[in-house]
Amino acid sequence: MPTFKIPGFKFAGVACGIKKSKKKDLALIVSDRPAAAAALFTTNRVKAAPVIVGMRHIKKGKLQAVVVNSGNANACTGPRGRRDAEAMCREAGTALKIAPELILPSSTGVIGVPLPIEKVRLGVRRAASSLSRDGFMQAAEAMLTTDRFVKTASGHCVVDGKRVHVAGMVKGAGMIAPNMATMLAYVLTDAAVESTCLRSMLRAVAKRTFNCVTVDGDMSTNDTVLLLANGMAGNHQIRQGSRDSRRLERVVCDVMRKLAIKLVEDGEGATKIVEIRVEGAASITAAQRVAFSVARSQLVKTAFFGEDPNFGRILAAIGYAGVPLDPDKIDVSFNGISVAKNGVGITANEKKAARAMRRPSFRVNIRLHQGKRSASVWTSDLTHEYVRINSAYRT
Amino acid sequence: MPTFKIPGFKFAGVACGIKKSKKKDLALIVSDRPAAAAALFTTNRVKAAPVIVGMRHIKKGKLQAVVVNSGNANACTGPRGRRDAEAMCREAGTALKIAPELILPSSTGVIGVPLPIEKVRLGVRRAASSLSRDGFMQAAEAMLTTDRFVKTASGHCVVDGKRVHVAGMVKGAGMIAPNMATMLAYVLTDAAVESTCLRSMLRAVAKRTFNCVTVDGDMSTNDTVLLLANGMAGNHQIRQGSRDSRRLERVVCDVMRKLAIKLVEDGEGATKIVEIRVEGAASITAAQRVAFSVARSQLVKTAFFGEDPNFGRILAAIGYAGVPLDPDKIDVSFNGISVAKNGVGITANEKKAARAMRRPSFRVNIRLHQGKRSASVWTSDLTHEYVRINSAYRT
Repeated sequence: MPTFKIPGFKFAGVACGIKKSKKKDLALIVSDRPAAAAALFTTNRVKAAPVIVGMRHIKKGKLQAVVVNSGNANACTGPRGRRDAEAMCREAGTALKIAPELILPSSTGVIGVPLPIEKVRLGVRRAASSLSRDGFMQAAEAMLTTDRFVKTASGHCVVDGKRVHVAGMVKGAGMIAPNMATMLAYVLTDAAVESTCLRSMLRAVAKRTFNCVTVDGDMSTNDTVLLLANGMAGNHQIRQGSRDSRRLERVVCDVMRKLAIKLVEDGEGATKIVEIRVEGAASITAAQRVAFSVARSQLVKTAFFGEDPNFGRILAAIGYAGVPLDPDKIDVSFNGISVAKNGVGITANEKKAARAMRRPSFRVNIRLHQGKRSASVWTSDLTHEYVRINSAYRT
Repeated sequence: MPTFKIPGFKFAGVACGIKKSKKKDLALIVSDRPAAAAALFTTNRVKAAPVIVGMRHIKKGKLQAVVVNSGNANACTGPRGRRDAEAMCREAGTALKIAPELILPSSTGVIGVPLPIEKVRLGVRRAASSLSRDGFMQAAEAMLTTDRFVKTASGHCVVDGKRVHVAGMVKGAGMIAPNMATMLAYVLTDAAVESTCLRSMLRAVAKRTFNCVTVDGDMSTNDTVLLLANGMAGNHQIRQGSRDSRRLERVVCDVMRKLAIKLVEDGEGATKIVEIRVEGAASITAAQRVAFSVARSQLVKTAFFGEDPNFGRILAAIGYAGVPLDPDKIDVSFNGISVAKNGVGITANEKKAARAMRRPSFRVNIRLHQGKRSASVWTSDLTHEYVRINSAYRT
């Protein structure tokens, strides 16, 4: 297992009894000094308490720590939930000797049940006393719920003569949909980055990564993506539009894309990860809309599970994407094996295409022959296991 | 089993070998004389060949027969598919001695495979020679694919001193979504109705019935809803805006609502039928949008299967409906048992609510406290059986 060390960051992941399973359920990420911070939150109108508090804390663009609990989402918990999210930050602030306003709180798990705040308090104290430069994986583990594995990624580049590190961890397996659906992602770097540059970098990268994956089309109340830059690398502050900014953005994008694809891989019950690639569209928006329409179709996703190259379901999903198109010009292929040409099925190739679908990951190519724009969306199959997990989640 | 007789209509349902199972796969519905006809077709841009041909045939507002095959959708079959759909009408026209343009063709089943036109021809001849006043159920049976049961409904009223009959049959179990998703519905009446009146009646009723149900959110390439009025009742022609028109519309609406709810009941793998009722919305559109957002959520639908009154998932789905609302004012109840009040969960009631969910059908009430508008959408649960059916549909 690779270790992730980013200069100036410490981590901890502990168990404090929120989860009945006694697994780790509280994580801390702490920077040695206040860091430039940019974040994106769920666009769901029903926002969890920690999101509401977190949105307030990040306003000045500076944060020093993140406190995350799993096992309870502290969502739909009313004013009490807001007080609990604040109490979580206060407890962490006391333990870490920093202002509570420099802390971002996150919660994930069951919705609508009050946060067991005494357990959380205990967990925060326990985590604060076990912080370590090597604790990255423990922290990543402590934020999991129905996730099957720890999801991390890292990269580096040279900026201003200094080696700069980027590392990220993400949590999420269900309720994955574009626009920050149930996912908590924390991406950390020791680069020094100017605040506005960091914010626009995060927005641009999220559009090409986290907002291009879908598992079940549900959007959660708790989603948070945070990018923290503590400047310990000692480079001159990276400014917007600079070459260094583009260089760092490439690494951040690479890390976030890896995390996004791991989210789909870990999609609840998923056995396959499929890239839906739409080419020849009139615009990027049109390409994305078609890709998402296919990527979200329950019938397409169950066909993926059945390893059935059912181009009919794909063509039907293309047809209701709400994009003007000529059905008689659409080509569809699976890993290069053509299954529909000019809107008509090529049944002779079906067996070969079915074989390509046996792989744990493959690509569906859709050519619209309308223009030169393209887009990719990553999705998973819809399986018995998805139904099992989600019909039994709380019982 | 009730028999459905509508004066002036004959029916047949036969097997002609399109389905490997040797079950019935070809249906004829024939009126003794040309009838006023109104139809709605899929809004999918990828339209099956019979839809393209049917849209042309209905332009003059008159039809005398319907020919339907199951087992093959004749969709994504290119120019050959269009020729086959026309050949189907020609064969029926010859057998029934009526103009092919007075015939509406429909196909349902596997997409992308050429129609076995010789089998269809044989079936048409066989059906034409077995037409009967009592054949309604046979015709309804012959259009089924993955449907578990025959879906029919009927009603009557008195118009202009004459007893008027309305009866309908519908096919559909998967790809059910608003805007005419895979469904074939034929509603017949012996009333005499003026053409424009019939058309506006169908549009108004569809909005309140077929367009208020969802199973999997997928929209098919073949959907067709037809309303045929042959005038054999001998009433004075019903005109738009008249009292008689409202009287007939009520019966047609009742028949179509019953058919629509049966579609959901027969939703692939469904074990429960759930009415999502949204009240206190600012507009009907807002109420419907919220209801559909909940009705389509995979997480909500799996929770229904698990008999878990998971208000958190419901609140999350309300939150991403794209409707401005105050999360702190939302109430949710299951069959009258409150599980969330002012956006906060009432966990004490969960066991009672879970008991209410054991029934095969129940209602989720959502109150937004924003206005006076309301809307209902009917949905089903998402089950193992759904995944099984759809991952193994063709294999």
